[in-house]
Amino acid sequence: MHPIRIHEVGPRDGLQAEAAVVPTEVKLDWIRRVAEAGVDLVQVGSFVRGDRLPQMADTDDLFRILGKESHHALFSALVLNERGLERALEAGVPLLCMGVSASETHSRKNTGMGTEEATRRIIAIALAGKQAGRKVQVSVQSAFGCGFEGAIDETRVMGLAAAYLEAGLTSISLADTAGHAHPGQVHRYVRRVRELSPGAEVTAHIHDTYGLGMANVYAAVDAGAWAIETSFGGLGGCPFTRVAAGNVATEDLVHGLQRAGQRLDIDLSALVAVAKDVARHLGRDLPGRVYKTGPILAKDLA
Amino acid sequence: MHPIRIHEVGPRDGLQAEAAVVPTEVKLDWIRRVAEAGVDLVQVGSFVRGDRLPQMADTDDLFRILGKESHHALFSALVLNERGLERALEAGVPLLCMGVSASETHSRKNTGMGTEEATRRIIAIALAGKQAGRKVQVSVQSAFGCGFEGAIDETRVMGLAAAYLEAGLTSISLADTAGHAHPGQVHRYVRRVRELSPGAEVTAHIHDTYGLGMANVYAAVDAGAWAIETSFGGLGGCPFTRVAAGNVATEDLVHGLQRAGQRLDIDLSALVAVAKDVARHLGRDLPGRVYKTGPILAKDLA
Repeated sequence: MHPIRIHEVGPRDGLQAEAAVVPTEVKLDWIRRVAEAGVDLVQVGSFVRGDRLPQMADTDDLFRILGKESHHALFSALVLNERGLERALEAGVPLLCMGVSASETHSRKNTGMGTEEATRRIIAIALAGKQAGRKVQVSVQSAFGCGFEGAIDETRVMGLAAAYLEAGLTSISLADTAGHAHPGQVHRYVRRVRELSPGAEVTAHIHDTYGLGMANVYAAVDAGAWAIETSFGGLGGCPFTRVAAGNVATEDLVHGLQRAGQRLDIDLSALVAVAKDVARHLGRDLPGRVYKTGPILAKDLA
Repeated sequence: MHPIRIHEVGPRDGLQAEAAVVPTEVKLDWIRRVAEAGVDLVQVGSFVRGDRLPQMADTDDLFRILGKESHHALFSALVLNERGLERALEAGVPLLCMGVSASETHSRKNTGMGTEEATRRIIAIALAGKQAGRKVQVSVQSAFGCGFEGAIDETRVMGLAAAYLEAGLTSISLADTAGHAHPGQVHRYVRRVRELSPGAEVTAHIHDTYGLGMANVYAAVDAGAWAIETSFGGLGGCPFTRVAAGNVATEDLVHGLQRAGQRLDIDLSALVAVAKDVARHLGRDLPGRVYKTGPILAKDLA
């Protein structure tokens, strides 16, 4: 099994669902510590309108501060539209993440556009980002099923991935937005995108809604995924809805990888400390396990 | 992927850790409903001394009642020693489960005997059970690591499995007693036992201590396991200790399998209803997901 990259999305996908806004200084502390722990990529925020999503209103500020520092990790942000791209370029975001939903209903609810129109628009924004010298990751949202539509035709998902690849966008995230994925499906989809373009960097974005999260992550890794998007403590999903759930916990995945002798370069204790602080700050138990149990000691690594 | 069998161990591994004894009539209700839902095997209890583990004191009674009924499921019980075997034979248990820990320390703490002596004794009991016409499953406990010793030498685990096979005991459960397993390890161990004896029926008993439970289950299935031991609601592990955790939730696994078109013969709604009742009876939230979120509707199966 090749060593997998970790993309920490807690500061974005995790915190955007929180009722209370986390202060910029607190976010900075968590982001810096995750980056210093050796995580490869960290998603700092989202360029959405601050009045619509106050949790993400400090994204520009975060990048202006982090941009003056030296970090090994690559920082990313979500870009939703042309205005977001302008702000992200202005803020100096190194990795721009953006996506289109393979679900027509989800796409219309999120953007007012169907999948086809949204794809044209996002590809144009992505290419403008690349032209401006930034790295770009494009995603297929609701790739494994949709909370509104149910099953999503695999042909639609692969068609969207192919459209990205034809446009020269080779960093592709397959997002299980609703948590509908099962391991066989994740394995097949990751493999199929890699077959479309062997050089493609495929990322899996998995939500642990139905208890299959970690199994889906390992299926993606087995199929040759380039990175996994995880969140500290497994934070994410609106705590007030029936079925939303967070991503797989960053520290749980790193712990599992280290049990197999992989990613020993990452400071697991530092990640566990961050997850504990996130839980303490939010005042509730998070889904992650290892931050509660403590990791199996290094001497016990089999 | 071949269809996997489900061995529900909630009534034994789940309930034995509960502070309050669950009344026999309540257990019977849960066991009958799980069996009627189409689960293949159900572990009813354990033939341990009733004064030592009052939660299991009604195991003989349960079998006497269930033995008069007609069920598709095969009922099993844990047998720890010669006295337990006598009671199990007397009670008419169709499938006798027993095991030895691959961890010397764990074995001594549990039985007062080291692994070697315990192996001789358990093999003798197992053969006596077979001679009495019962099915027998033997397990390797702490197969993937030990809470006392840490890593357990793979050679010890395979040696124990080989000893079982040489004695003609071909139904073998690899038990992750402490929850230390990781997917690559589970895959390798299941495969290796199957290589020792291609006809062996290998079961995986997985605890979700560090968040890898479901990934470990899928690794076992991928490697050709014959059955997985799961518990309703993911019940299990002492709620008062730092690191114990339950098995993977039966209904979460069945839900995942059904997402892939497998085990559609099992009545998932019935399992979800049981898990809800278990949680209600115990008065607390259990680790299982699907009994809380509800399954993805059948129309949405991808």
